[in-house]
Amino acid sequence: MSRLRNASFALSLDGYGAGPCQSLDQPMGENGTELHHWAFRTRTIQRLFGIQGGEAGVQGTQGVDDGYIVRGFANVGAWILGRNMFGPVRGPWPDLTWRGWWGEEPPYHVPVFVLTHHPRPALEMAGGTIFHFVADGIESALRQARQAAGDADVRLGGGVATLRQYLRAGLVDEMHLAVSPVLLGQGEHLLEGIDLRALGYACTEQVAGENAMHYVLARR
Amino acid sequence: MSRLRNASFALSLDGYGAGPCQSLDQPMGENGTELHHWAFRTRTIQRLFGIQGGEAGVQGTQGVDDGYIVRGFANVGAWILGRNMFGPVRGPWPDLTWRGWWGEEPPYHVPVFVLTHHPRPALEMAGGTIFHFVADGIESALRQARQAAGDADVRLGGGVATLRQYLRAGLVDEMHLAVSPVLLGQGEHLLEGIDLRALGYACTEQVAGENAMHYVLARR
Repeated sequence: MSRLRNASFALSLDGYGAGPCQSLDQPMGENGTELHHWAFRTRTIQRLFGIQGGEAGVQGTQGVDDGYIVRGFANVGAWILGRNMFGPVRGPWPDLTWRGWWGEEPPYHVPVFVLTHHPRPALEMAGGTIFHFVADGIESALRQARQAAGDADVRLGGGVATLRQYLRAGLVDEMHLAVSPVLLGQGEHLLEGIDLRALGYACTEQVAGENAMHYVLARR
Repeated sequence: MSRLRNASFALSLDGYGAGPCQSLDQPMGENGTELHHWAFRTRTIQRLFGIQGGEAGVQGTQGVDDGYIVRGFANVGAWILGRNMFGPVRGPWPDLTWRGWWGEEPPYHVPVFVLTHHPRPALEMAGGTIFHFVADGIESALRQARQAAGDADVRLGGGVATLRQYLRAGLVDEMHLAVSPVLLGQGEHLLEGIDLRALGYACTEQVAGENAMHYVLARR
């Protein structure tokens, strides 16, 4: 059955999913990239984004962390992204020149539903990615994404505000959180004011990776 | 050099150090005992509290989790506790009959400084534990504890509110947090509104135990 799930969602030890003061230069906020060091060191992410070398070597790590990255991409038929995950433009679109952070062939290869208050025509990219802009709410985006995904899962890409909306609405079937051993101190806190226990979630898996601790949460 | 540190401080995955609605029957709050399952399963805690059997067997686990428990007790010359860690009595002491949660021979065996707004004579127990009640603030308690501890460390026993006060004051040298794979959803959050990064802390150690993930945070 198709599930709504996130995957490889990086958190700091103190619970932040992004740093403060996000901008074009710092899309993950101040110090926010530290959350993702574990992912940048994996073979799958290095290949996907053409990252060369680094301390983990050209090929990247192939252990537990990489296994979670691979699992995150498996059986995904559609994505949902918050608008800030699509780009740094705020408010009405001044024009249609912004085409995402990922160049002409984004790593999705399936339909991607972008939440926004400002409609815009669908945008077809190379490699099978089509960005659809959904202006009538998170439930509409989920309905459209489920239809596009068929039996496959819908992956909730983030960011923090988007995941929080779907969590509060009780719509997320499974979460995979990757906790990095860093402290941000400020930024976007994933769970503040959200009672996951009352929403029916429990931790079903905890595994130590090479550079992050992995937790899977699912509804009982 | 003598350090102020906590150890084996259990947190839920969502950051709570105690559940809501603490009472005599539920000193750790609703569902709060779930935070401590990892500790109850260790050999050291089972011996200390005379716990028999349980799923881990009579002897308890002797691996990573137990190693952190042992380390927590090593080289401790004095403890500091918040009053609610000493007992469930609130406000002025109605009499002196409450002598702690731990019976006539508490597991401290050194001087213990209890923070309170209500002075009370020192209380000498069997086995070397003496409870001193400190009514003139956290810095006074630390000064007295350091004097009692000499070259050994002062261990900050908790609870959450006490640790938060010492953290905000920049007085904690090292923290060992044990994250249990449970969600509390509500209760006493350890870090809400505290910017550990700005206070100079970083994660210096992360190790997966049998039943909890262990993090050591220290000031850079």
